[in-house]
Amino acid sequence: MTFHEARFRVRYAETDQMGVVYYANYFIWMEIGRAEYCRAQGVRYKDMEVEDGVLLAVVDAQCRYLASAKYDDEVVVKTWVSRANRRLAEFSYEMSVDGNLLASGSTRHVFLGRDMRPVRLPEKYYPSFGLSATGRS
Amino acid sequence: MTFHEARFRVRYAETDQMGVVYYANYFIWMEIGRAEYCRAQGVRYKDMEVEDGVLLAVVDAQCRYLASAKYDDEVVVKTWVSRANRRLAEFSYEMSVDGNLLASGSTRHVFLGRDMRPVRLPEKYYPSFGLSATGRS
Amino acid sequence: MTFHEARFRVRYAETDQMGVVYYANYFIWMEIGRAEYCRAQGVRYKDMEVEDGVLLAVVDAQCRYLASAKYDDEVVVKTWVSRANRRLAEFSYEMSVDGNLLASGSTRHVFLGRDMRPVRLPEKYYPSFGLSATGRS
Amino acid sequence: MTFHEARFRVRYAETDQMGVVYYANYFIWMEIGRAEYCRAQGVRYKDMEVEDGVLLAVVDAQCRYLASAKYDDEVVVKTWVSRANRRLAEFSYEMSVDGNLLASGSTRHVFLGRDMRPVRLPEKYYPSFGLSATGRS
Repeated sequence: MTFHEARFRVRYAETDQMGVVYYANYFIWMEIGRAEYCRAQGVRYKDMEVEDGVLLAVVDAQCRYLASAKYDDEVVVKTWVSRANRRLAEFSYEMSVDGNLLASGSTRHVFLGRDMRPVRLPEKYYPSFGLSATGRS
Repeated sequence: MTFHEARFRVRYAETDQMGVVYYANYFIWMEIGRAEYCRAQGVRYKDMEVEDGVLLAVVDAQCRYLASAKYDDEVVVKTWVSRANRRLAEFSYEMSVDGNLLASGSTRHVFLGRDMRPVRLPEKYYPSFGLSATGRS
Repeated sequence: MTFHEARFRVRYAETDQMGVVYYANYFIWMEIGRAEYCRAQGVRYKDMEVEDGVLLAVVDAQCRYLASAKYDDEVVVKTWVSRANRRLAEFSYEMSVDGNLLASGSTRHVFLGRDMRPVRLPEKYYPSFGLSATGRS
Repeated sequence: MTFHEARFRVRYAETDQMGVVYYANYFIWMEIGRAEYCRAQGVRYKDMEVEDGVLLAVVDAQCRYLASAKYDDEVVVKTWVSRANRRLAEFSYEMSVDGNLLASGSTRHVFLGRDMRPVRLPEKYYPSFGLSATGRS
């Protein structure tokens, strides 16, 4: 299994009056995780959209919260493809600070064309999503 | 079952370059839904925090996305308590535009005190969470 | 002078660990103010973009902060066009809670076409921006 | 003059349906700039709050927009203290991508204590804000 770790600091804007990071922001962090995962695989998310007109539309997202992230913490998002075929991809994530797991989650995506209708993932992206030449993972 | 419907318009800030609402924002909408649900039950979320020092800390959140919300759409968030006891509460949500379901989701919360440790929900809040005098739903 | 008042409640997501609304959110509120101002003038911001391909691109934004907004406060954003011609428009804003002024600000915008180059405001929108038939305010 | 450059990539969440970064986000970037500026001066923003109970409350913010940032762009925020005394500090910012200036801005802040009343900046922070022992810049 290939995985990637993205790192960044918690922004003041991401905290709420409870003094910790607001829960919706973990989903923004997951997006950073999967963008960086793709980049590490040689795929710029942006290019998939611009060059090939392939969008990853999220169909499902979930997060379990174990501990709170605080302002200025350095967060590590570990990301991997937990499932993929020509129609959809599932990413899984673990978010931690100083080795302590804060949250784990996953997002499922379908591939859409510019007309917002489902398309098959172009073959050139197979390796990035861990798919063999037959489109299986 | 008691439920509440909150209404608001999609903000420009909530869209992304795909031309639709960014997926993390649905979790902010769920928060609006549960705040308004509580208000309709006579409980101001804010007062629970300020007066009784009871925080609702999210431990789990998930959302299924069926269709996209667009800028200026009037969104309705239907919210209800799908499970509750003295230690935790689960809210469920359906988000729709013009009667079309966009997304459904749920969040689970534990009750915490000011010291961020678990507490039992004070009795005065039982009815708001659909609990009987014995703390059962 | 025509003005419009938009109303909404402060979201939990908008607070930060200082216990008040994070400063960047006031600019999101200004956007709500000007969208609602335009709607009250019979112009849907969205339609300007979709039907006529006219975008309002912000070139300048500023805000003075006098007092803090808190979670669940009902905010009123008073919005008016403080300057306009065929090339640009300036909106001004006053944000208050319970009649107490929290902040005042302004944003300046140029009209852009779909190609992101400056265009003249189509005549049909003149009245909405307080312009006479000659394009003067 | 001392300045600091912070670097980060534009997040998908920061774009809007115009295909560029939503204007309010530049103020979040300014906050990253000043937090990193302070860190480079040996002051953790967080510690000022936690250890000394000194908060930087923004009283004024402004931004001029020259060009658009796009998803995945690597943004550089150059930050410096443009004015400071024992009561307030002004930070100035230049945000650029690949050497092209996107926006410039400034924020003014007063020092507040935990009770949200103005306080004088503790002497130990003078050097970080470019103040001499007499509290002048």
